[in-house]
Amino acid sequence: MSEMRHDPLHRRWVVIAPERARRPSDYKICDEPAEEFDPFAEGNEEHTPSEITAVRKTGSKKNGPGWSVRVVPNKYPGFRVEGDLQRQGEGVYDKMTALGAHEVIIDTPKRDEDFTQLSPDHLFDLGKVYRERMTDLMRDIRLRYVLLFKNHGHIAGASLSHPHSQVIATTVTPRIISQKLESARKHFDDKERCLICDIIDQELHDRKRIVVQNERFIAFAPYASRFDFEVWVMPRYHQHDFRNISDDDLKSFMLTMQEVLLRMRLALDNPPWNFVLQSAPNSESLSARPNHFTTLQHDWHWHVEITPRLSMTQGFEWVTGFFINATPPEQAAEILRGVSV
Amino acid sequence: MSEMRHDPLHRRWVVIAPERARRPSDYKICDEPAEEFDPFAEGNEEHTPSEITAVRKTGSKKNGPGWSVRVVPNKYPGFRVEGDLQRQGEGVYDKMTALGAHEVIIDTPKRDEDFTQLSPDHLFDLGKVYRERMTDLMRDIRLRYVLLFKNHGHIAGASLSHPHSQVIATTVTPRIISQKLESARKHFDDKERCLICDIIDQELHDRKRIVVQNERFIAFAPYASRFDFEVWVMPRYHQHDFRNISDDDLKSFMLTMQEVLLRMRLALDNPPWNFVLQSAPNSESLSARPNHFTTLQHDWHWHVEITPRLSMTQGFEWVTGFFINATPPEQAAEILRGVSV
Repeated sequence: MSEMRHDPLHRRWVVIAPERARRPSDYKICDEPAEEFDPFAEGNEEHTPSEITAVRKTGSKKNGPGWSVRVVPNKYPGFRVEGDLQRQGEGVYDKMTALGAHEVIIDTPKRDEDFTQLSPDHLFDLGKVYRERMTDLMRDIRLRYVLLFKNHGHIAGASLSHPHSQVIATTVTPRIISQKLESARKHFDDKERCLICDIIDQELHDRKRIVVQNERFIAFAPYASRFDFEVWVMPRYHQHDFRNISDDDLKSFMLTMQEVLLRMRLALDNPPWNFVLQSAPNSESLSARPNHFTTLQHDWHWHVEITPRLSMTQGFEWVTGFFINATPPEQAAEILRGVSV
Repeated sequence: MSEMRHDPLHRRWVVIAPERARRPSDYKICDEPAEEFDPFAEGNEEHTPSEITAVRKTGSKKNGPGWSVRVVPNKYPGFRVEGDLQRQGEGVYDKMTALGAHEVIIDTPKRDEDFTQLSPDHLFDLGKVYRERMTDLMRDIRLRYVLLFKNHGHIAGASLSHPHSQVIATTVTPRIISQKLESARKHFDDKERCLICDIIDQELHDRKRIVVQNERFIAFAPYASRFDFEVWVMPRYHQHDFRNISDDDLKSFMLTMQEVLLRMRLALDNPPWNFVLQSAPNSESLSARPNHFTTLQHDWHWHVEITPRLSMTQGFEWVTGFFINATPPEQAAEILRGVSV
């Protein structure tokens, strides 16, 4: 059974999930596992845990064929929704049950249909599922944060090549999110302006790091990019919580994401990447210190970080927290803008 | 020319180092580059920048053969020691010159001589070079932090297979270090005990996560291990600054490191790994806020983090700051202890 353990030096929670363990001989990063059987393909529904929701043709049956997007629990979850949240000290350390949810969103019934190839209608359906899962999971007020992310390529952590997204809901706000939230709050306290709105204004003014720009969204290579060809996608209008996105904006958001990922695919020969949607923490979540965790509308501005996995020279930066990036974001943006799509 | 850029959301400095750039077609993590020529081999000294120091046979000449450990500037440095530290705003952003040093310590004249194969005398010489470079670089009071690390294996970021270590000296303390320092300071303020001494006591009491233990050092799988088979090595006695290590303790430290890395090599089939030595910041470093940065003896306790690179499923954890580890540290320690060396 998984548990969360607290590191008093890094002040960070780590999930220890032995159910996901492998044998020492299985630890080979670069060996892509042979995939004969595709449990995410249409017709193989019985090989996944029972579905949570799906976008289905009228008349098709739950856990049968006839769907375009399908959500199932992760077969090897890092978190489980059953049971109580138990917290316990263990000498100088602390632990708690890894309460939460871990779901897989199967983007498409077809293994070889990439995110960049989905039709606008299909993309919109997928976006609606993103919004719905986030909304539904946050109804459980024990769950303080919902992360939505997608790994593309074996190197980026995709354990199956069939395109899928993932949702993790946890009882803690990840440290990287709470740090960013704190920066944004401080900025607002000082200036009564949203930090991320200010960043967007700066990018629109500088122009040289923009990758895609339309009426409602902007995608740009961040000024202090940690990774080669890193791109952030943000709504140009202020919105703290992704759950509040309108249908029209959702369509535009998914098309913007698709265009950025297509430009990366073409410019960098289908690189591995991750994206993570960073929305606001669950304001309704129970907390011992409610004032500390309640997120006000001006505290946050949701956005997506897309991080290609192009270089392992970053190894030591992950360990030291010190990033060296060889590709200036201005150059990355120019290359990505230059692709004809 | 490299520069450091500040990200106002993550409040983190990133080095943008275009001199290290490659073409988009060169971004392939798993393709090991063909290595025909070894610039670090004995006899090829003219192919590196001029040496900074070396452990040499009496009578041998600088930049010639006859050495066992040799230190040269990195040919593609992230930091440079020339010039002034200039700080500048750029709209909502900030930047400064990437002032610092980036050196390569060539562990041995032989490409195929692994750290785990070095003789005790050779290991001691290497340890003395580690201590000397750290001591020498910190004489420059502009340099606030010196990181000593080693990447083993292409996947872990080693650009050449010839065994080498690296030293980076920077004008900022990496965020991960300042966070840990803050935890240790808080703990001391509360309890008047060193946090890391307390962690060591706990590990000696629990016993189940210990990998190697001797009179002066302890190596253990940390309670909240972020990575499969992560191991920390710490002096059992309190010492905040690696520069102060005695010769006897240095010998013991290097032998402890060697034993841990040998156990990993045997148990995990020569995995890629990084280690990073986390010593105290430079107390003599100039700072606009001296009290904030002066590190007192009780504030810190130097140690090494060894992080094998066994799994890319960690991809999203690096991005989200949220780690899921499939190998309980108790199990990792048992496997590593079980190896006969």
